[in-house]
Amino acid sequence: MTDTSNNKVVLAFSGGLDTSYCAQYLAQEKGMEVYAVAVNTGGFSDEELKQIAQRAEQLNVVDFKVLDCTNQYYEECVKYLIFGNILRNQTYPLSVSAERMFQALAVANYTQELGAKYVAHGSTGAGNDQVRFDLAFQIIMPEVEIITPIRDLQLSREAEIDYLKANGIHDDWEKAAYSINQGLWGTSVGGKETLTSHQPLPEEAYPSQLQQTEPLQVTLVFAQGELKGLQWGNEAAQTYHNPVDAINQLNKLAAPYAIGRDVHVGDTIIGIKGRVGFEAAAPLIIIKGHHTLEKHTLTKWQQYWKEQLGNWYGMLLHEGQYLDPVMRNIEHFLADTQTTVSGQVFVQLHPYRFEIAGIASDHDLMQAKFGHYGEMNREWSGDDVKGFTKILGNAHKIYHSVNKV
Amino acid sequence: MTDTSNNKVVLAFSGGLDTSYCAQYLAQEKGMEVYAVAVNTGGFSDEELKQIAQRAEQLNVVDFKVLDCTNQYYEECVKYLIFGNILRNQTYPLSVSAERMFQALAVANYTQELGAKYVAHGSTGAGNDQVRFDLAFQIIMPEVEIITPIRDLQLSREAEIDYLKANGIHDDWEKAAYSINQGLWGTSVGGKETLTSHQPLPEEAYPSQLQQTEPLQVTLVFAQGELKGLQWGNEAAQTYHNPVDAINQLNKLAAPYAIGRDVHVGDTIIGIKGRVGFEAAAPLIIIKGHHTLEKHTLTKWQQYWKEQLGNWYGMLLHEGQYLDPVMRNIEHFLADTQTTVSGQVFVQLHPYRFEIAGIASDHDLMQAKFGHYGEMNREWSGDDVKGFTKILGNAHKIYHSVNKV
Amino acid sequence: MTDTSNNKVVLAFSGGLDTSYCAQYLAQEKGMEVYAVAVNTGGFSDEELKQIAQRAEQLNVVDFKVLDCTNQYYEECVKYLIFGNILRNQTYPLSVSAERMFQALAVANYTQELGAKYVAHGSTGAGNDQVRFDLAFQIIMPEVEIITPIRDLQLSREAEIDYLKANGIHDDWEKAAYSINQGLWGTSVGGKETLTSHQPLPEEAYPSQLQQTEPLQVTLVFAQGELKGLQWGNEAAQTYHNPVDAINQLNKLAAPYAIGRDVHVGDTIIGIKGRVGFEAAAPLIIIKGHHTLEKHTLTKWQQYWKEQLGNWYGMLLHEGQYLDPVMRNIEHFLADTQTTVSGQVFVQLHPYRFEIAGIASDHDLMQAKFGHYGEMNREWSGDDVKGFTKILGNAHKIYHSVNKV
Amino acid sequence: MTDTSNNKVVLAFSGGLDTSYCAQYLAQEKGMEVYAVAVNTGGFSDEELKQIAQRAEQLNVVDFKVLDCTNQYYEECVKYLIFGNILRNQTYPLSVSAERMFQALAVANYTQELGAKYVAHGSTGAGNDQVRFDLAFQIIMPEVEIITPIRDLQLSREAEIDYLKANGIHDDWEKAAYSINQGLWGTSVGGKETLTSHQPLPEEAYPSQLQQTEPLQVTLVFAQGELKGLQWGNEAAQTYHNPVDAINQLNKLAAPYAIGRDVHVGDTIIGIKGRVGFEAAAPLIIIKGHHTLEKHTLTKWQQYWKEQLGNWYGMLLHEGQYLDPVMRNIEHFLADTQTTVSGQVFVQLHPYRFEIAGIASDHDLMQAKFGHYGEMNREWSGDDVKGFTKILGNAHKIYHSVNKV
Repeated sequence: MTDTSNNKVVLAFSGGLDTSYCAQYLAQEKGMEVYAVAVNTGGFSDEELKQIAQRAEQLNVVDFKVLDCTNQYYEECVKYLIFGNILRNQTYPLSVSAERMFQALAVANYTQELGAKYVAHGSTGAGNDQVRFDLAFQIIMPEVEIITPIRDLQLSREAEIDYLKANGIHDDWEKAAYSINQGLWGTSVGGKETLTSHQPLPEEAYPSQLQQTEPLQVTLVFAQGELKGLQWGNEAAQTYHNPVDAINQLNKLAAPYAIGRDVHVGDTIIGIKGRVGFEAAAPLIIIKGHHTLEKHTLTKWQQYWKEQLGNWYGMLLHEGQYLDPVMRNIEHFLADTQTTVSGQVFVQLHPYRFEIAGIASDHDLMQAKFGHYGEMNREWSGDDVKGFTKILGNAHKIYHSVNKV
Repeated sequence: MTDTSNNKVVLAFSGGLDTSYCAQYLAQEKGMEVYAVAVNTGGFSDEELKQIAQRAEQLNVVDFKVLDCTNQYYEECVKYLIFGNILRNQTYPLSVSAERMFQALAVANYTQELGAKYVAHGSTGAGNDQVRFDLAFQIIMPEVEIITPIRDLQLSREAEIDYLKANGIHDDWEKAAYSINQGLWGTSVGGKETLTSHQPLPEEAYPSQLQQTEPLQVTLVFAQGELKGLQWGNEAAQTYHNPVDAINQLNKLAAPYAIGRDVHVGDTIIGIKGRVGFEAAAPLIIIKGHHTLEKHTLTKWQQYWKEQLGNWYGMLLHEGQYLDPVMRNIEHFLADTQTTVSGQVFVQLHPYRFEIAGIASDHDLMQAKFGHYGEMNREWSGDDVKGFTKILGNAHKIYHSVNKV
Repeated sequence: MTDTSNNKVVLAFSGGLDTSYCAQYLAQEKGMEVYAVAVNTGGFSDEELKQIAQRAEQLNVVDFKVLDCTNQYYEECVKYLIFGNILRNQTYPLSVSAERMFQALAVANYTQELGAKYVAHGSTGAGNDQVRFDLAFQIIMPEVEIITPIRDLQLSREAEIDYLKANGIHDDWEKAAYSINQGLWGTSVGGKETLTSHQPLPEEAYPSQLQQTEPLQVTLVFAQGELKGLQWGNEAAQTYHNPVDAINQLNKLAAPYAIGRDVHVGDTIIGIKGRVGFEAAAPLIIIKGHHTLEKHTLTKWQQYWKEQLGNWYGMLLHEGQYLDPVMRNIEHFLADTQTTVSGQVFVQLHPYRFEIAGIASDHDLMQAKFGHYGEMNREWSGDDVKGFTKILGNAHKIYHSVNKV
Repeated sequence: MTDTSNNKVVLAFSGGLDTSYCAQYLAQEKGMEVYAVAVNTGGFSDEELKQIAQRAEQLNVVDFKVLDCTNQYYEECVKYLIFGNILRNQTYPLSVSAERMFQALAVANYTQELGAKYVAHGSTGAGNDQVRFDLAFQIIMPEVEIITPIRDLQLSREAEIDYLKANGIHDDWEKAAYSINQGLWGTSVGGKETLTSHQPLPEEAYPSQLQQTEPLQVTLVFAQGELKGLQWGNEAAQTYHNPVDAINQLNKLAAPYAIGRDVHVGDTIIGIKGRVGFEAAAPLIIIKGHHTLEKHTLTKWQQYWKEQLGNWYGMLLHEGQYLDPVMRNIEHFLADTQTTVSGQVFVQLHPYRFEIAGIASDHDLMQAKFGHYGEMNREWSGDDVKGFTKILGNAHKIYHSVNKV
């Protein structure tokens, strides 16, 4: 590691302006060997990956590589977001928060494999991502130095473009109206209106536009909390060995309904409030459907503690604390609750919304044979309930008798 | 109280078959003086109250009275449901759970005023309401005996009708397809499909039908957490001294959009799972709007603890534990958090759904002058964030260094 | 099961007056075949078990059996009480609450094996134990009828003695001054002073009396949260395959110091307050020692969530809810946190008290090589901490700037 | 504020080596007008304050002032530590954590009154105090610059002494074996053994030595959670208008018993583990006594939520987050729970330990007239409890029937 000739730097590379600048800057100004790496967490199409590769070729990099960690991302994170029905502030499925962490972990592993002495990312100094990257790198490889040109130099967009042009990279760097971030677990949309408190994102800001208006029946099949099957319309039921495929298929069905859009207002790691739009059709349907299945199959306190721990899992993940060992403990807890969370969930898709129609499960605790809510039954008598309320009232009866007004 | 000639019984009376049976039965078979009382928590129209009074007149009751506790219900309960953004299981605004408690309290107070030795309610032995009534009566007036003819006799509907007819009460007792329960804070709909796990309620089961399809802009004005103003379409802004009026007005605007419908699956006090439909247009819009305003005006831990305590307030209220003194402590907490929760919330109504467009508040913590999420700023430097993440990473850096794989 | 000739009843038998009465009563008055069973959770000596057997022989029972479930009790419960550092109300190690549940489970299993139609216990109607027994029996074997003669008949002690004497059982039934309950995880002491709010138990009420006054050094060796070794005074270090043996040995060392005595005031399942004395030398030393080891080896949030879940594990166990599946989920969580909880804990025993001197562990996070509290170090600079506090202060800086007085 | 001639600096001054160095350094090297200020939170005797003043006079300061904020500290913080029974990690009464915050607040107020442009403190870069000071200053007066010579210069102790001597300040700067920090709510003791994980502090490290061996009976009188009276031995009962006086008196009684010593191992704000000894006789007796009184006078869920919120109040206070508005909300909650927490607590002092003998309160919920734990009573029947357990078992009965092995 003390090899002074080691000037390898691994750069987390997305092909955008900021990371393109970084690649060129590190190679040219710092004389480093730049290993650009793009990490796919399910959001890049083959076409997009080809474009990123082409961009990398234009720049002064030694090597460019795509690391696909979609399956790992599902297995080590998204799965638990489903088990925990996790929506930050009851709203946001943590689309970006989660994947950024896995990108950082993949970059760190690659850096260690390569034996590079430096690692670089293109975050600015005003968001959550810088903290997530820095934390992951420091904890996993404290001996590697982190370089963040964009944060350090605070260049304007124009200055970056000028620099790249001056170096012969004449791409069309026109700024998109919105900053879009796509992954397996949803797409975030930031810019313009999200910088205000009072404006919603306009229809056209969302990547998926409304294309379907006829309601569609979809059945989700869960096995121990994981989405393993889908059936829709008149199609034959599909079974998926890999839940990633089921998520992608469901998204394909639901995105044309413009389902799962919302705006999240949250507390960033650095203490300011942040507002971001998102669309996440499949994640929202899966979470609501899974949650409904759990209402039928788990006890009251199982649901309570899942909510508590799920809430924290989301918060710590959001704040870049994925490497706290308590996260592993929570994952164990959540996984252990899923034994009985199997069955079908019936969903109806409508433009801009969906309805959970109901569920069917061998583990359904709302059992006809035991007694229905609101209907008399043979399992207990009126006297049993009288005794129940009598004892249940004891503590408060005593309290109010002792502390009379 | 030991006056043996005291055979007064106060009967919680709704004018339905069960409580009509109780009135007649208690008077005729038990020789009691029946004081029938209907408690209005905002769900009865004048017309409905007149009908209930007429029904009471037909029966063998000494007196019939309507107690209107809508304002008290708002002040001592609904207000806190808003402060706490309380939705049971992230879904149900506790429409019935809350009002049943206040009906029980009103009946108990009236029973004590009257010096009656008995109190009666028409609950069956299979639901939550019996527990709520019994608990409230036992705690507030342990010396009064509770009579529950329906629970004790377990008569069929037909037997009740026959009995009433035999006593000259020939009303049309035809059973409604659904059991509907209406109050200030929403309407519940139970029966048929809600007794299954897999079927949704059909469109026609809901009292409010879709009548509006043109989107409508509505502005909600909150003052310290309470809804004090409304503005919609091209109408002039309205200010309300009494938030009850604002809630009713908002419901009038939103119900024709068929907003706020859902099905709640929950754990009853008696341990079985229960499923019930509801429509609650105003409650859901108010809670979501209020919640969004809080995301902008409260700190992270204020939001966290409000959620914790609000969740429990809802659970204990649902389970008839309103008289636990911890409920008063929680109310104090929630009220104390509302100091800065003032401002406007912009909402758009659509058929079956609504969108929160944004907010405006003098207490908005998402301040342009301090620094925006995702944009560089002058309040801190990149080095500050580097120092931040360095220290923030300490604990995990140590953990992973000590516990190397 | 519908065999009408099946009149077998399994009786949870302790050899005391109440259960002796039950045995005789069920056989003689009800004509049942009584299978008496004593369940040992670590509190009975061989001598005591012999006495119980002799008592059973005098009575009209078909069979008497001792079920030793000490190891199962440790593996399925006590272990988690240690992992969770569980003290009810920060005080009581749940000595009786825990073992009563395991006695009920053992009796239920035996009843099922035997195919008996009835099960009986000798609890009164005023305590927690009746609820624990009833719950376990109803849940595990809802088809078996529960018989509780003492609770039903409400006989006086004298009436019970008279009945037994009339049937030729002339034992000395003199009432002990205190009701003592002994098990692996502590001994409870109830009666006289514990029925008041203001009096402590006198010295002589405690089974173990002060016999040692010379301080003694003891080292506890934990392996993944379990007590696997002890060393004391000048003795050679002992390793235990079975932690039950280590617990018993530690108790033998510490009880003569009269360590671990206290009075617990708690909320019973039936809503009244209960007060009970206890002595639990080994449990308290183990819990405090284990907790100290965790302070050195777990992260802040691991400790936080262990405390939350441990607290509930204790509460639900205390209230007879051991069979809620959330308990299994919590056990998984707690076990998963123990991976790094290995090392030595140094303790000093004194009359009536003990001190935790310190710990040694390969997983100790208080690492000299990283930097010591209060001493400058090389891992971070003053500027890093400045940046840290600057960012850490952001949220409140904004709040106070927006909400100026 | 932009007055460039304003070179006033307020220095938090304790009279020790570090802050003496700061005073001289800021005046001489930086040419500043140094306003030294010592903040008393109940730990300084008149004698000690005189010595600090003398030290200040020797140095090159413009002014020296003592701010006594003991009463404010009690009213705005210690009171809530009692209401919440707050012991960090079940051990440490937050002696230093709490007072450091109040010292920072007092210094900030003074700085603002004075219109000074700078504020200075003598913390190093390795502890919690720097964060507490920095946070308070930044939030309350973001326009004031913070100067921290010790943290920035990283001088050795010897270098500081040499500098002071070279400037004619020839005091005896010999280093004390332990760093002692005394306040109303306890004394911390750090150094030597506390830098290891395995060693306890020796007897002589503690400021108070054992002087009493005869047991002493003390009665604490609480009024709505506050200590308002004391009675001990044969002395007449004392009533205190100001609880600060009661705390001081109790400490005078208990310190000679060497009560309230322990070692706290905790997570510092900067992520490393810290270990510190303390003695806090009065705080521990008050907290344990108050807690016992609450066990008798509060409902189960009041106790539960007090523990939750108290725990967080302690954690946030410890971490310098006292200015989060959630702290005010929690204070409101805690204060609201104290309505019924009035009565006497009986305590016995012994060498190195104390026992809570019992309590007496008009609000005691352990009422003889209602029914005693373990004794039959007239308020409910055995059948009531049977009904209770039947209904209570419903949920698990269903679960185990649906999910049979």
